[in-house]
Amino acid sequence: MEARNIFLNLSPLDHRYSLSESGIFRQLSAFISEQAAVLSCARAEIALMKAHLAVRGELTAETEAELDAVAGRVDPAAVYAEEEKTRHNIRALVNVMKTMVPEKLAPLVHLGATSVDILDTALAVRIRDCMHRVVIPVLRDLELNLCAIAAREAETPQVGRTHGQHAVPITFGFAVAEYVSRLGKSILEIERLAGSLRGKLAGPVGAYNGLSMIVRNPEELERKYLEFLGLTPSEHSTQLVEPEYLLRLLLECNVAFGVIANLADDLRNLQRSEIGEVFEQFSASQVGSSTMPQKRNPWNSEHVKSLWKTFAPRVLTFFMDQISEHQRDLTNSASQRFVADYIAGFAMAAFRMKTVVAGLQADRDNMAANLARAGGKVQGGVLAEPAYLLLAEAGVSDAHEVVRKITLEAETAGIPFYAALKNHPDVFAKISAQLAGTGISDADGFFADPARYRGIAAEKASALAAKYSRLMEDLPIG
Amino acid sequence: MEARNIFLNLSPLDHRYSLSESGIFRQLSAFISEQAAVLSCARAEIALMKAHLAVRGELTAETEAELDAVAGRVDPAAVYAEEEKTRHNIRALVNVMKTMVPEKLAPLVHLGATSVDILDTALAVRIRDCMHRVVIPVLRDLELNLCAIAAREAETPQVGRTHGQHAVPITFGFAVAEYVSRLGKSILEIERLAGSLRGKLAGPVGAYNGLSMIVRNPEELERKYLEFLGLTPSEHSTQLVEPEYLLRLLLECNVAFGVIANLADDLRNLQRSEIGEVFEQFSASQVGSSTMPQKRNPWNSEHVKSLWKTFAPRVLTFFMDQISEHQRDLTNSASQRFVADYIAGFAMAAFRMKTVVAGLQADRDNMAANLARAGGKVQGGVLAEPAYLLLAEAGVSDAHEVVRKITLEAETAGIPFYAALKNHPDVFAKISAQLAGTGISDADGFFADPARYRGIAAEKASALAAKYSRLMEDLPIG
Amino acid sequence: MEARNIFLNLSPLDHRYSLSESGIFRQLSAFISEQAAVLSCARAEIALMKAHLAVRGELTAETEAELDAVAGRVDPAAVYAEEEKTRHNIRALVNVMKTMVPEKLAPLVHLGATSVDILDTALAVRIRDCMHRVVIPVLRDLELNLCAIAAREAETPQVGRTHGQHAVPITFGFAVAEYVSRLGKSILEIERLAGSLRGKLAGPVGAYNGLSMIVRNPEELERKYLEFLGLTPSEHSTQLVEPEYLLRLLLECNVAFGVIANLADDLRNLQRSEIGEVFEQFSASQVGSSTMPQKRNPWNSEHVKSLWKTFAPRVLTFFMDQISEHQRDLTNSASQRFVADYIAGFAMAAFRMKTVVAGLQADRDNMAANLARAGGKVQGGVLAEPAYLLLAEAGVSDAHEVVRKITLEAETAGIPFYAALKNHPDVFAKISAQLAGTGISDADGFFADPARYRGIAAEKASALAAKYSRLMEDLPIG
Amino acid sequence: MEARNIFLNLSPLDHRYSLSESGIFRQLSAFISEQAAVLSCARAEIALMKAHLAVRGELTAETEAELDAVAGRVDPAAVYAEEEKTRHNIRALVNVMKTMVPEKLAPLVHLGATSVDILDTALAVRIRDCMHRVVIPVLRDLELNLCAIAAREAETPQVGRTHGQHAVPITFGFAVAEYVSRLGKSILEIERLAGSLRGKLAGPVGAYNGLSMIVRNPEELERKYLEFLGLTPSEHSTQLVEPEYLLRLLLECNVAFGVIANLADDLRNLQRSEIGEVFEQFSASQVGSSTMPQKRNPWNSEHVKSLWKTFAPRVLTFFMDQISEHQRDLTNSASQRFVADYIAGFAMAAFRMKTVVAGLQADRDNMAANLARAGGKVQGGVLAEPAYLLLAEAGVSDAHEVVRKITLEAETAGIPFYAALKNHPDVFAKISAQLAGTGISDADGFFADPARYRGIAAEKASALAAKYSRLMEDLPIG
Repeated sequence: MEARNIFLNLSPLDHRYSLSESGIFRQLSAFISEQAAVLSCARAEIALMKAHLAVRGELTAETEAELDAVAGRVDPAAVYAEEEKTRHNIRALVNVMKTMVPEKLAPLVHLGATSVDILDTALAVRIRDCMHRVVIPVLRDLELNLCAIAAREAETPQVGRTHGQHAVPITFGFAVAEYVSRLGKSILEIERLAGSLRGKLAGPVGAYNGLSMIVRNPEELERKYLEFLGLTPSEHSTQLVEPEYLLRLLLECNVAFGVIANLADDLRNLQRSEIGEVFEQFSASQVGSSTMPQKRNPWNSEHVKSLWKTFAPRVLTFFMDQISEHQRDLTNSASQRFVADYIAGFAMAAFRMKTVVAGLQADRDNMAANLARAGGKVQGGVLAEPAYLLLAEAGVSDAHEVVRKITLEAETAGIPFYAALKNHPDVFAKISAQLAGTGISDADGFFADPARYRGIAAEKASALAAKYSRLMEDLPIG
Repeated sequence: MEARNIFLNLSPLDHRYSLSESGIFRQLSAFISEQAAVLSCARAEIALMKAHLAVRGELTAETEAELDAVAGRVDPAAVYAEEEKTRHNIRALVNVMKTMVPEKLAPLVHLGATSVDILDTALAVRIRDCMHRVVIPVLRDLELNLCAIAAREAETPQVGRTHGQHAVPITFGFAVAEYVSRLGKSILEIERLAGSLRGKLAGPVGAYNGLSMIVRNPEELERKYLEFLGLTPSEHSTQLVEPEYLLRLLLECNVAFGVIANLADDLRNLQRSEIGEVFEQFSASQVGSSTMPQKRNPWNSEHVKSLWKTFAPRVLTFFMDQISEHQRDLTNSASQRFVADYIAGFAMAAFRMKTVVAGLQADRDNMAANLARAGGKVQGGVLAEPAYLLLAEAGVSDAHEVVRKITLEAETAGIPFYAALKNHPDVFAKISAQLAGTGISDADGFFADPARYRGIAAEKASALAAKYSRLMEDLPIG
Repeated sequence: MEARNIFLNLSPLDHRYSLSESGIFRQLSAFISEQAAVLSCARAEIALMKAHLAVRGELTAETEAELDAVAGRVDPAAVYAEEEKTRHNIRALVNVMKTMVPEKLAPLVHLGATSVDILDTALAVRIRDCMHRVVIPVLRDLELNLCAIAAREAETPQVGRTHGQHAVPITFGFAVAEYVSRLGKSILEIERLAGSLRGKLAGPVGAYNGLSMIVRNPEELERKYLEFLGLTPSEHSTQLVEPEYLLRLLLECNVAFGVIANLADDLRNLQRSEIGEVFEQFSASQVGSSTMPQKRNPWNSEHVKSLWKTFAPRVLTFFMDQISEHQRDLTNSASQRFVADYIAGFAMAAFRMKTVVAGLQADRDNMAANLARAGGKVQGGVLAEPAYLLLAEAGVSDAHEVVRKITLEAETAGIPFYAALKNHPDVFAKISAQLAGTGISDADGFFADPARYRGIAAEKASALAAKYSRLMEDLPIG
Repeated sequence: MEARNIFLNLSPLDHRYSLSESGIFRQLSAFISEQAAVLSCARAEIALMKAHLAVRGELTAETEAELDAVAGRVDPAAVYAEEEKTRHNIRALVNVMKTMVPEKLAPLVHLGATSVDILDTALAVRIRDCMHRVVIPVLRDLELNLCAIAAREAETPQVGRTHGQHAVPITFGFAVAEYVSRLGKSILEIERLAGSLRGKLAGPVGAYNGLSMIVRNPEELERKYLEFLGLTPSEHSTQLVEPEYLLRLLLECNVAFGVIANLADDLRNLQRSEIGEVFEQFSASQVGSSTMPQKRNPWNSEHVKSLWKTFAPRVLTFFMDQISEHQRDLTNSASQRFVADYIAGFAMAAFRMKTVVAGLQADRDNMAANLARAGGKVQGGVLAEPAYLLLAEAGVSDAHEVVRKITLEAETAGIPFYAALKNHPDVFAKISAQLAGTGISDADGFFADPARYRGIAAEKASALAAKYSRLMEDLPIG
């Protein structure tokens, strides 16, 4: 019953991607596989026993060690075998654990708890741990790789693009800094929200009914129980922990996923044959196309985008799972199990993107060439904008018209915009004077080189790279 | 590399549900696991070789048998090992197959094809087969079980409910016939659309470029290739088959899923403590609640609803996958792999619902009791409606007011509506005469028994049960 | 109460887009505004009166005309005023209509009907009519415009693109024919499904309870009622028509929407500065950018894509509306009203795309230039593929290697691939012979011109254009 | 052009719901109609002028007042008329405003800005204001109404329900406190996130290119500009503000929407004929059903659920709008306009729920009756659980079996559980002693009254009501 040829699995997560992303798969499996789920429930049951003992003042270090050891020895297969009989997964776990703990402590197993006191709490623990130990480290590495590029390419000129059209210059580092800033904030949010997950020990309807029969202060027992697991109680419980603690975390994951998908789209487009500004690393033995050997496809970026399309719509399920009738119905049970799928898909996408970014090659020559071509039919035409702005600032009321005519002259004569501008010494003088006022004293150098019309792109890129590198280093995780 | 403890899997499909629904899991695995995917591609490659030979007039029965045998012998693990080198899954398959076919036929492997000519075609084949051999048989069994209940309970009185409020009587068979009718039509659509999936052999951009260099009539080769697999060509191809053939099938699956989810909700609600009109079968050793042994939870219906919440939103991914830039981008590649998840989730939900319906117990006593209580504070008050309608038909212009007052008398006197009505012999005479005109001659019997005010509920239930039983028997599948 | 400054409206449909798409807005408003909704209900009520008279054999042409006239005279504002009192929209309509019909016929108004018998039926009528009279004509015009381009540009060479990378040649007409084929099929489906919408007259729980008291054959009355409106009955009804008739139509609209969005994306990308193969028409006074006058943004295609993002996810609501508890709950009431929004959004996107396609300018020079550049560092390198295929067909077992070396020679020497190939007369001879076998006798001409390596792109484009032009002309609508 | 019969509108927001929720409609219209959008852009343009003057040290109080007055006088119709010519909405606004400001200040209009510097900033302002002035006040009122019920009904016994089955007792106030807690936290989050929206003044690609030509410190100008509007700058900008500031606010709105939808479902179910524990207020003239006058449908709660189904899936659009190619594409333009629809739908649902909760009637008798019936065939059987728990705590190892048998005796004898328990004085003595240890000294009273087995339900209800009442009073808004 236990082992299966992986190629017989149904989900790509458990066959194809468990191989292509085997490292991340193993890490995820350690936290959110079914084995991990059973073991996390076992740990919650042990925490409950310890809480009972602690409240009674009977918890010794020795007992604690003894109990902790039990949690790790639970065999999911044995629990499943027992469930065949009970048809109830937590009852099965309880039955198994009762045979594993010291006999005199057996009555404490599950004492006063309803199944969900264990299940929801264990879910919080393993999702939190999976975030802290697997997902956030991957995101942090991705972010640090982005920071490195933003810093390294802070000064690399690139044409800015809006509507797919050449606009005005930026630097490649500045373009990457967009993702540094957006993803960075999302990582910090994920870290905060993962640390905010809650557990419960409040019984089948959340009112501590049975627990009130057993202990004098059931809320104290709940706090103790959760403390052993590093959690705090849900502010209110029905049979369930309030669903919004987990929901907000998953939504923020999807926010980060959207940022990563946007990055993937940008990288896909920058790799177009006609643009060619960046390239994914390509292994030597890789086949681009079975019939067109010249091709170097942006398939990793495409893969990331595809995973986003697969997983992003699943937030709808998370929202639907907010609704549970009265003190709970069970219609969130199966759906919540697939949260593991979602996290896995997200982590695999982030991991792949980390790899892409780590090996990303910026083709500075093509960037320069594309920038030089920008501006339509007039070389350097992209500098008509600053010429017009400066001339207007200098008080020339028809500045726009003056510059437009110079542009036409350049086009007619087939000369660069800069050359045409110099043919109007009075205009150029006014512009130069105004430019000097902004701290740029060599108007000639400026107008000969569109790349210098980049605003504060480089400074923003460097500053954001530095800021988020520091924030990532400070993350209290992994 | 190959075998893995199933509890280390990430998707519930591949651990928990592969056990709880082991039969359906195995059937699905035979068609849409990764092994099935590789084997279906191998079969497509073989079909291509046979097509080349057929077009050349060189295909003998012996060669055909020899080649067919190869397809079944391909080892997915070997293909994956080869992919480690090529980083391209179809190139890997081709390399493996070249060593398996007779040497003189090796040049025919993949000849003229681009990867997607194989991949999209093989996908169509295995989805079609999975539908015909696994999913539709399950749906048909569910439908036949529904037909059986609709027929059996065609005459069982039940109160109709709108807005959760008691309305007028129906029969339980009529309520079930709703699902017979809705699900039945959807099954017929699924069968039609599964048979309409398409394949392609049109090269990397769909224009048969390379194929035109190899054969005189590339469209003839394509038809031949697909004929061996029971398919016809996509009307137009880019690198991909037109996505809408598959999309429409998946959307119809989601339509059927919605019908099943609605049924699940109805069954959940009819099992409420306060209603108690139906029950899921409960095995003897099953634990309802770890602390509340009296409970019999509708957990199978809840499970089905939960699966619907998990899978229904995924249609958004299918719609997103319609969009592929130019002659294709690869952003539908990973996402399309998860179509297998979707089909599995749908099939498992349908299978579970089939089991629920097969064991469904209608509590006719509770149905009768609830119907008797319907109508608010006056017993049999639900018959005020027909009394008013008949009186109005008899030409009494203030019929509504007359009947309303009789209802008040009944309430004041604490007697059934029927008794109060009889206290007005003239009114009752007019009503009786009018009722006789509808073919009901015993007004006394009618007004003593709300269950008789059921319109044509029983007839509709029987007719729909009979119609769809026949249609299901005639389905050309499985 | 009645008139409002449109700029005070909340939905962009009712302010901004009601102006920018004023023609289509007015057409939509005639069918799916609130006024249209009220009037369609009035027409349904009239149909019910005529059905009663017809079943009784009392319907004269004169009465029919008299009643039909009433339907058009109902004032929505009066109905709303009445609803203030009744708090029930259909009861309000009934009250208003009773005062408008001949007094002796007043008892027939709404006789035997429940509100939804009118509402669901009227919804089917107006959606069907809106489809036939507004939406499908727009789609047909779009399709005909696409057919015209596919035919006109059937022979226009263009480089095929996969993964955003240059692949092998196609023609622009072939690229457009993809949309001819996909959209064409969807339009035919929409037409079929719009004609399949159903109505009902089956009472509050679908069992014809009250109707059975009034007429001998309630199903005959239902058929008669619906016949006056051009509909047939839902196969089974609860309080509601089976939701799947409408659902399938809306899903197919979303399928068409996806095809149009894909087209929009292709047009956006083909308008990139670096590609420049097509252009949207630009009016003379239009401002591209407030600061960058050179820009010509693909904003109409962007708009269409944006509408798709707005409306495509709404199918989830349509799926959710499949679920209605027991004989109905009311949770589909508000949501179903927004179907009008969806149809409007879809129609406006289709209309905008029709305009874009009508004015689309193909830049054949840029297409030719991009194709010439395709193939990486070797001019005409895209023809390495046919060279290799033909050489292999000629029996040269290391054909791929031979051609690869020739490509390298071309690159080293800085000469076109064709020139390098000619430097190997024996190879070229074999290739030429093989090429002749495919019907191309001038190998020189072929290898000098990548555009000729287009497979059957031109033929497919022409054939699909012709086929769908014909099918669109034959559509029995509008 | 300007005024339109509202019944000709397409969106239910602008016809039906603009009447049924006319108060909230008018408030929303003041902030998020098209008129409000144009005026908010005008205010942003004015803020930009003031920023230029302030940076130059030329802003007097008089000029400021003069400029502020202009913003309110802009006529949207005039802007639209101008847009007919420019085909560019912000250029149109600029042209109009240049004629309205003092001539010498006209050159400052839009100086250095790109359209989105105005548009995105104005969007942030009006969404923030709409939240603070309209949406949050409605949510706060709803929350305060919930607090009032939770406090008032803190002690009202009710049976807890899980899986739709009777579980153990709670109080109605405790059930409502669930929503106090969940909605309360969401309101606080919405308030926080609405205050975190950002603006920008960074030019067409976010690098302050042109601005650097005009002012020495463009970031200072940006801060100044935004300060006049109460905003701070986006940490990084492309042409757009980082989309996640707004996204997170909208997601949190959808979180609150889900909580409200859950409440709506609970209220719908508690109003079922068979349960009857709460009722919506019903106006005297309201028609429940056109044919079944006894019905009191939970139509307001149904309406709220229906709005949730309509609007909740739209978050997918918000996620899709995260993706914008390079420094922006325009595919978020139309879709972002529909954010106004979403907010309106959400606000209307919250407002309706506020009304429902304000008039909600708890039927304490029915609650008591349902609780008394709970426990299946034995009256008071719900107290078997505490009996078993206390007996086990008292050291009786087969406590569960002992109590089960007593339950059977009660069933056989047809006596209450409490009576049967008293028939076993030794058992009852042990239980009583143990119960005394929990602070309950009258075991007789306890076991005669299931309502006392409520854990700390009442205390939780009161505490949460008090806490969130205080938090709502402290909200710094509206």
